[in-house]
Amino acid sequence: MAKKIILDCDPGHDDAVAMLLAHANPEIELLGVTTIGGNQTLDKVTHNAQCLATEYGMEGVPIHAGCDRPLLRPVNPAAKEHGESGLDGVVLPEPAPLSEGHAVDFIIDTIMENEPGTVTLVPTGPLTNIAMAVRKEPRIVDRVKEVVLMGGGVHVGNRGPVAEFNIWTDPEAAKIVFNEPWPITMVGLDLTHQALATDEVAKKIADLGGPVADFVLGLFTFFRKAYQDSQGFEFPPVHDPCTVAYLIDPDIVKCVKVPIDVETAPGITNGMTVADFNAPIDETVHTQAAMELDFDGFWSLVVDAIDRVQKSGKGAPAPQR
Amino acid sequence: MAKKIILDCDPGHDDAVAMLLAHANPEIELLGVTTIGGNQTLDKVTHNAQCLATEYGMEGVPIHAGCDRPLLRPVNPAAKEHGESGLDGVVLPEPAPLSEGHAVDFIIDTIMENEPGTVTLVPTGPLTNIAMAVRKEPRIVDRVKEVVLMGGGVHVGNRGPVAEFNIWTDPEAAKIVFNEPWPITMVGLDLTHQALATDEVAKKIADLGGPVADFVLGLFTFFRKAYQDSQGFEFPPVHDPCTVAYLIDPDIVKCVKVPIDVETAPGITNGMTVADFNAPIDETVHTQAAMELDFDGFWSLVVDAIDRVQKSGKGAPAPQR
Amino acid sequence: MAKKIILDCDPGHDDAVAMLLAHANPEIELLGVTTIGGNQTLDKVTHNAQCLATEYGMEGVPIHAGCDRPLLRPVNPAAKEHGESGLDGVVLPEPAPLSEGHAVDFIIDTIMENEPGTVTLVPTGPLTNIAMAVRKEPRIVDRVKEVVLMGGGVHVGNRGPVAEFNIWTDPEAAKIVFNEPWPITMVGLDLTHQALATDEVAKKIADLGGPVADFVLGLFTFFRKAYQDSQGFEFPPVHDPCTVAYLIDPDIVKCVKVPIDVETAPGITNGMTVADFNAPIDETVHTQAAMELDFDGFWSLVVDAIDRVQKSGKGAPAPQR
Amino acid sequence: MAKKIILDCDPGHDDAVAMLLAHANPEIELLGVTTIGGNQTLDKVTHNAQCLATEYGMEGVPIHAGCDRPLLRPVNPAAKEHGESGLDGVVLPEPAPLSEGHAVDFIIDTIMENEPGTVTLVPTGPLTNIAMAVRKEPRIVDRVKEVVLMGGGVHVGNRGPVAEFNIWTDPEAAKIVFNEPWPITMVGLDLTHQALATDEVAKKIADLGGPVADFVLGLFTFFRKAYQDSQGFEFPPVHDPCTVAYLIDPDIVKCVKVPIDVETAPGITNGMTVADFNAPIDETVHTQAAMELDFDGFWSLVVDAIDRVQKSGKGAPAPQR
Repeated sequence: MAKKIILDCDPGHDDAVAMLLAHANPEIELLGVTTIGGNQTLDKVTHNAQCLATEYGMEGVPIHAGCDRPLLRPVNPAAKEHGESGLDGVVLPEPAPLSEGHAVDFIIDTIMENEPGTVTLVPTGPLTNIAMAVRKEPRIVDRVKEVVLMGGGVHVGNRGPVAEFNIWTDPEAAKIVFNEPWPITMVGLDLTHQALATDEVAKKIADLGGPVADFVLGLFTFFRKAYQDSQGFEFPPVHDPCTVAYLIDPDIVKCVKVPIDVETAPGITNGMTVADFNAPIDETVHTQAAMELDFDGFWSLVVDAIDRVQKSGKGAPAPQR
Repeated sequence: MAKKIILDCDPGHDDAVAMLLAHANPEIELLGVTTIGGNQTLDKVTHNAQCLATEYGMEGVPIHAGCDRPLLRPVNPAAKEHGESGLDGVVLPEPAPLSEGHAVDFIIDTIMENEPGTVTLVPTGPLTNIAMAVRKEPRIVDRVKEVVLMGGGVHVGNRGPVAEFNIWTDPEAAKIVFNEPWPITMVGLDLTHQALATDEVAKKIADLGGPVADFVLGLFTFFRKAYQDSQGFEFPPVHDPCTVAYLIDPDIVKCVKVPIDVETAPGITNGMTVADFNAPIDETVHTQAAMELDFDGFWSLVVDAIDRVQKSGKGAPAPQR
Repeated sequence: MAKKIILDCDPGHDDAVAMLLAHANPEIELLGVTTIGGNQTLDKVTHNAQCLATEYGMEGVPIHAGCDRPLLRPVNPAAKEHGESGLDGVVLPEPAPLSEGHAVDFIIDTIMENEPGTVTLVPTGPLTNIAMAVRKEPRIVDRVKEVVLMGGGVHVGNRGPVAEFNIWTDPEAAKIVFNEPWPITMVGLDLTHQALATDEVAKKIADLGGPVADFVLGLFTFFRKAYQDSQGFEFPPVHDPCTVAYLIDPDIVKCVKVPIDVETAPGITNGMTVADFNAPIDETVHTQAAMELDFDGFWSLVVDAIDRVQKSGKGAPAPQR
Repeated sequence: MAKKIILDCDPGHDDAVAMLLAHANPEIELLGVTTIGGNQTLDKVTHNAQCLATEYGMEGVPIHAGCDRPLLRPVNPAAKEHGESGLDGVVLPEPAPLSEGHAVDFIIDTIMENEPGTVTLVPTGPLTNIAMAVRKEPRIVDRVKEVVLMGGGVHVGNRGPVAEFNIWTDPEAAKIVFNEPWPITMVGLDLTHQALATDEVAKKIADLGGPVADFVLGLFTFFRKAYQDSQGFEFPPVHDPCTVAYLIDPDIVKCVKVPIDVETAPGITNGMTVADFNAPIDETVHTQAAMELDFDGFWSLVVDAIDRVQKSGKGAPAPQR
């Protein structure tokens, strides 16, 4: 049976691929997409999510806008990595309609209305919406199946020496989320820096041909240049779909069970996800860190998703350039 | 025209008097009561609010339960001051019904559905509900009339050297609330330590006679002993109704305009409301601190409220002891 | 018998008056002057101390240079208040010689070589030297008579909302000093903002006539303008000599016994001296805060000191302008 | 020419081996041993250092006692790892004499009296003495050859999730030391957890025979049990001599150049040495982290040192047990 997920995201080039994978792969039932200010402002990422829904032909998947800023920090978009629009480098189709109701309520209601233990939260942006949901309705903690999030990292940062962008953007929300006793898989930079969109990957996508393949290649082209300029990568790490890939096939992402907390003290490690490898690993440990990626397995899923969307005939036609 | 308020509280002996004053005084239109875990757990303070509604005869005033814990901290009830029930020392009548819907949504919806600039928020507990509301619906900032809160203090603390209980309980929520540009009146310990339920005050209430007078005297008797034992006061400071008194008659509470922020760094001042008396006072300063109480004026309002409720004939009859 | 003191300072206009008072008043035996980077860099304040020794005719009083920067912070001179030289506004005579040996060692050796309980430390700058001395030789804690320092404040700041310059400059050193169990009198801004060099004060000094009177008036003229421009005072607060005045005549400075600690957490209260007025006052409380100044008594001591130096005939002649 | 070093230590089982190696290896000229409260109180570790000097026959090497506690923290001995004496498990000979003068002054004077660029500081305990020295005499920064310290770690902690004992004991001192621009080699847990005293190592030492071999085996026997019980190691990591081994033969310790700072904010990462692998590596980077140990090369040096001391005939005879 397909796994039910809510994708809480801030598209974002890599969020765009996560949406694609969550929509197209038959192992996943995408209950809804919620948006959060992060890579760009809430307005922009919500618009982007709506356009991506058109691009991929996601009729029937509700999109709900969430919080427009972190709990305590100001918004601080990742414009260097994602451009002014949050999805620079591609031509977007018309936006699909936005659903009524706040993302926080959609998350709560969806979890409470589905069978216990059936809904998985997949946040790929700052954790503000998830933190708000769990404070508003604490019963969702026992009710969700698990939380599989992109963010953090055990030994790696990309905002300051040891903080990752999503966690650094709203460390207080992250602390809330990591300290609830639900099962959490942290798909952090240790893992996602392995998910590089290499030339070989691009070639496989190009070989498919078609409007969505072109679209994804457009994303990668911009993203590659942005990561080269901003972080010195040769190929861009496509972080967010790793969460969905793990849900489709857990063998693709090797995880290590370890207690993880978030540093909120205002020092040089602020926003760090702190894994305690000295702690005993017993049944109270509800967190695991993703450490090793099956590169080929991961990219096969992405290529397959592009292919499925194109074959479905539901996606947007290629833009007239 | 009466001022429309939402009372966001955690009854609590002094919250009980705030509810009484807000309900009975004709200058105030009490749109609803929302509850928040603070003086005691959410379950207990919500139950207390419901019973107080019966006690005072508050038919038609909705009561909504809110968040059960602070954003980042664990709940840490003020049992020394308020007892195990949160309202120790009195016999409570049957609870009035609880309204459906979360306090956060009631706050948002009430503000958005009323005319702009007409609804005042009166938080007398930790600021979690208010912080959640403003992050969920940022437009309430421009839409409320003002925020008149009990909490903090300029030069005084009661949890550690310089932090006050409500702010100390959820400093992050307080930081959120104080950093939004709505007009805020901080009715802190500088003011409320002047609102002592002295023997003279008790006598005036006793002179009234009647079930609500007895009820309030019961509250004060317990509260006095609790403050003597826990904080070394001779008479208990009845903090929370000072907010409502200020709204009824601003002359009762003298305020000083000053920028106020909240310390969230994890040191010895954590939870302090930091007033900056060195800062220039211009139109960007949206906060003021209550500094001086008209003692007689304040207690006259309370005595009058007791009298009005008793004369209305709607309150609960005296319990059979 | 005169009280033996070491003056640890960073002249500085008000330090200059403290040196004058410590040197000239017969109730004080000035064992030495030590310098510390603060109001200006170590080089500048040491030079200033040497020149002041010439100005006042302080033969035989050793001057030792100390630490050139705070423990953890960079140096951050108070150029707005004291100018580029640290003593802008006056013509300085030739410097008296600098003694060999580090201020920290001079402090330790002087305390250890004198009878126990006879030497008082009078720091009027950042507390780096004192903190270093007590960590290097912990026995000085039991051996000193007391510490009477200018710095901090209970309800007042001048760097940020609640921090005073000396403590803010080196909060870690201050935390070290306040947490040792020696008797500490904190002469903070609560007190020193009462020590204003008013027109009336200036007139009394002008009435004396003579080179030191002229010199002090020169200091006040610059200092007044600097405080007007930087902090909005009409008359400048002459902080540092209040410490010496208290030692000459304790009746001049009313103090309140209260536990005091220093906030070193990196938030908005960093560098605050936190007085705990809720704490029980027992024999373990070794700190007191100066709260009320005898204005006339204080300034009489300063005027008297100018007069004594001038009558001694040892000071520098008036500069040829 | 032998490298001149000052060993600043808190013996401590592994410090004892560091002393042995520094004393016995001809590539090292041990100018002096200074002590610091850490693994045990200053009194105990100083006594231990004196006894070790007798054990190894270190006539002519001065021993100076230093600071008895961290700058801001209380002393917090590592009794679980080193026992009540700091050197539990062995019988110590009579102490060699303690030299007069404070460790901080010995460090400063030795550096200033030797040729520039010839003296290396080798701290293997908390960095309090070194921090004090550099604040007292800032010129030592340009004057030392380098600082090779045991402490910290890039991805590993042993006090809390990410802090190492020496840095955690005095994070403020560590921040001072790491932020001075002298060349620093951080020999942290990444490296020293490779320096395990395995059965094979013990056998090699046992094969030597003799009083010092017995003494070192006694150290390892206690240390092994202590690490098994306290940190779950099978074999104990012999941290401190790795610093000396690196100075004898840099090929034994592979290092990575990376900026390193210390977290002093009071959160869960307090005391972490934060390496910034995202930062550009240019000439301003003066820190490197030791990452990879030549296990055999390292232990050969230790075995050789035992052998040399025994052959010198200067060490203490075996105790009569």
